[in-house]
Amino acid sequence: MSALAPVIVAAAPELQVHSFGAPNTGDAQVAVCWNPPAGALRSLPELRLVHAIAAGVDNILCDPQLPAVPICRVVDPYQARAMSEFVMWGALHFHRQFDQVLANQRAGLWQVPAQKLASDCTIGVMGLGEIGARVAADLLHAGFTVKGWARSDRTLPGIQSFSSRDALPAFLSGVDILVCLLPLTSETRGLLNADLLRQLNPGAKLIHVGRGEHLVMDALLAALSNGHMDGAIVDVFPNEPLSPDDPLWRHPKLIVTPHMAAIASLETIGSQIAENVRRLMRGEPLNNQVDVGQRQ
Amino acid sequence: MSALAPVIVAAAPELQVHSFGAPNTGDAQVAVCWNPPAGALRSLPELRLVHAIAAGVDNILCDPQLPAVPICRVVDPYQARAMSEFVMWGALHFHRQFDQVLANQRAGLWQVPAQKLASDCTIGVMGLGEIGARVAADLLHAGFTVKGWARSDRTLPGIQSFSSRDALPAFLSGVDILVCLLPLTSETRGLLNADLLRQLNPGAKLIHVGRGEHLVMDALLAALSNGHMDGAIVDVFPNEPLSPDDPLWRHPKLIVTPHMAAIASLETIGSQIAENVRRLMRGEPLNNQVDVGQRQ
Ligand SMILES: NC(=O)c1ccc[n+]([C@@H]2O[C@H](COP(=O)([O-])OP(=O)(O)OC[C@H]3O[C@@H](n4cnc5c(N)ncnc54)[C@H](OP(=O)(O)O)[C@@H]3O)[C@@H](O)[C@H]2O)c1
Ligand SMILES: NC(=O)c1ccc[n+]([C@@H]2O[C@H](COP(=O)([O-])OP(=O)(O)OC[C@H]3O[C@@H](n4cnc5c(N)ncnc54)[C@H](OP(=O)(O)O)[C@@H]3O)[C@@H](O)[C@H]2O)c1
Repeated sequence: MSALAPVIVAAAPELQVHSFGAPNTGDAQVAVCWNPPAGALRSLPELRLVHAIAAGVDNILCDPQLPAVPICRVVDPYQARAMSEFVMWGALHFHRQFDQVLANQRAGLWQVPAQKLASDCTIGVMGLGEIGARVAADLLHAGFTVKGWARSDRTLPGIQSFSSRDALPAFLSGVDILVCLLPLTSETRGLLNADLLRQLNPGAKLIHVGRGEHLVMDALLAALSNGHMDGAIVDVFPNEPLSPDDPLWRHPKLIVTPHMAAIASLETIGSQIAENVRRLMRGEPLNNQVDVGQRQ
Repeated sequence: MSALAPVIVAAAPELQVHSFGAPNTGDAQVAVCWNPPAGALRSLPELRLVHAIAAGVDNILCDPQLPAVPICRVVDPYQARAMSEFVMWGALHFHRQFDQVLANQRAGLWQVPAQKLASDCTIGVMGLGEIGARVAADLLHAGFTVKGWARSDRTLPGIQSFSSRDALPAFLSGVDILVCLLPLTSETRGLLNADLLRQLNPGAKLIHVGRGEHLVMDALLAALSNGHMDGAIVDVFPNEPLSPDDPLWRHPKLIVTPHMAAIASLETIGSQIAENVRRLMRGEPLNNQVDVGQRQ
């Protein structure tokens, strides 16, 4: 928060910005947060808006005493682009077998991997929101065959889309690389489990950039060790940061990245919050308000 | 050649295809080759066409006794796409600091790298031919700032292009990632030398996918060890394959790949050769004929 206060003030000098818990925050009308302690928001009697500092609001929605005020999130167009860069790197890493090529380098082994057409590689994207839709479109542009899955019917040109739990088997069938870009909700928690992973193509890979709690890690490790799956990039974990002695760091089929896939820029966060506070004061509709009913 | 003969015959069953040096090849009218022994082509008195099996023809042009017949090469549209995948992986690898992130994983270190805009990363592409032009366009689409360099003036939308030796300093200035996609000719041999590398931005990276002889390896190693440059992906070497005990395999700032960036598909090679042989027989203009005068 300390880094964010100046950028909010820079965008809206008329605002007073204080740190959570500082002496004069009791009458705060707007709370800007990422992972507030349970009950902290309820303790603000004047609260009219909760503004997340990121795209995901699961850390806010999980507060059982969450006050009934609007919740907004930050939607940074560059964040979708940054996510797309991360996923594209991962997809190419697996498609062009750089995992094997880098291992061969360590062994001094010159071995040209088989080169397949990107169109023969099917990527399944779970979540077709602000970020997932952009990622899916960029993968399609790169030549991959792309399938998508969301809650509601989504029409994305060139992408075979599926919706609802019932369509999950049809979506998963034939997928070589699965990308998770879902928000964390009660419906998506633990969704990447043994039953789901089993439905992917043999030798499938996972690029997990949603939330740690989507993935049943033991199910992934079992699929990697029994050979059904052949690699994974995992950027998010239930407890972050991973401790230095976590065995995941040393798993030969796992690339562990430090929740780095897509960070919204401070300037964007600051200006979107400032804009929404001004809209609130003027009684105008808010930007990027979260539909809390649907998401819980 | 053994793998190629059936695909040529499949595309043109009327042709007789023999291995170089087999008893009945003395009257061959077409030679299909990649790296013919010096003088071998001269020994074919009926020769009317030399057809390379790849995009690069440097191994053919270097024959001092090369007969004065047309030389054609294979231009596989998927090869440019495959190269673009390889270079995109490399560009994202450096741009998103996966080199550091993978090293951090080995150390069990959770450290989020700074995330910059792709537009703040300038990629310089040397060679804007069939392959380089496609690579440059795809990098631009991914958001990078792209500069290009060729022999003649090339107009590629959104890409600042330079031509001729005189413009080399202007092209190199400000480049963060240099990509070499030149053919090997007497003009380009040894071009990636200490003087050229010195003109790149501090911390620059190299993605070398041209030919081994373009690069003065000692100059690259010096730039990496004095810190002016910060990483390289090298796919091509003067002597391939690299021997298992070559110290390059173990250089911490070097990714060594086994000349894998873009392989033309056997089917494409076979059908393009078959088509050109038929054109030769019918006296029609040949596809993808190399301008030998300019290239030597
Ligand atoms: N690793 C990182 O650095 C990082 C950075 C940013 C975001 N993220 C993750 O990416 C997620 C997506 O971000 P976003 O901005 O794209 O979110 P978003 O715009 O809210 O989109 C969410 C998508 O998920 C779908 N979805 C939600 N619940 C579902 C369910 N129960 N079944 C099927 N589909 C469901 C939605 O379907 P509808 O389209 O039908 O509503 C929508 O397509 C975030 O929540 C976060 O977990 C990670
Ligand atoms: N690593 C791999 O797996 C792999 C696979 C395929 C190809 N390659 C390499 O990629 C190269 C390019 O292939 P391509 O099909 O794109 O070739 P191309 O169509 O012949 O294009 C060559 C480009 O290089 C430029 N060029 C040639 N000589 C030059 C000089 N002296 N100064 C400045 N520019 C010069 C040309 O300029 P103009 O446009 O002005 O003529 C042209 O833009 C091949 O020759 C080979 O070395 C590597």
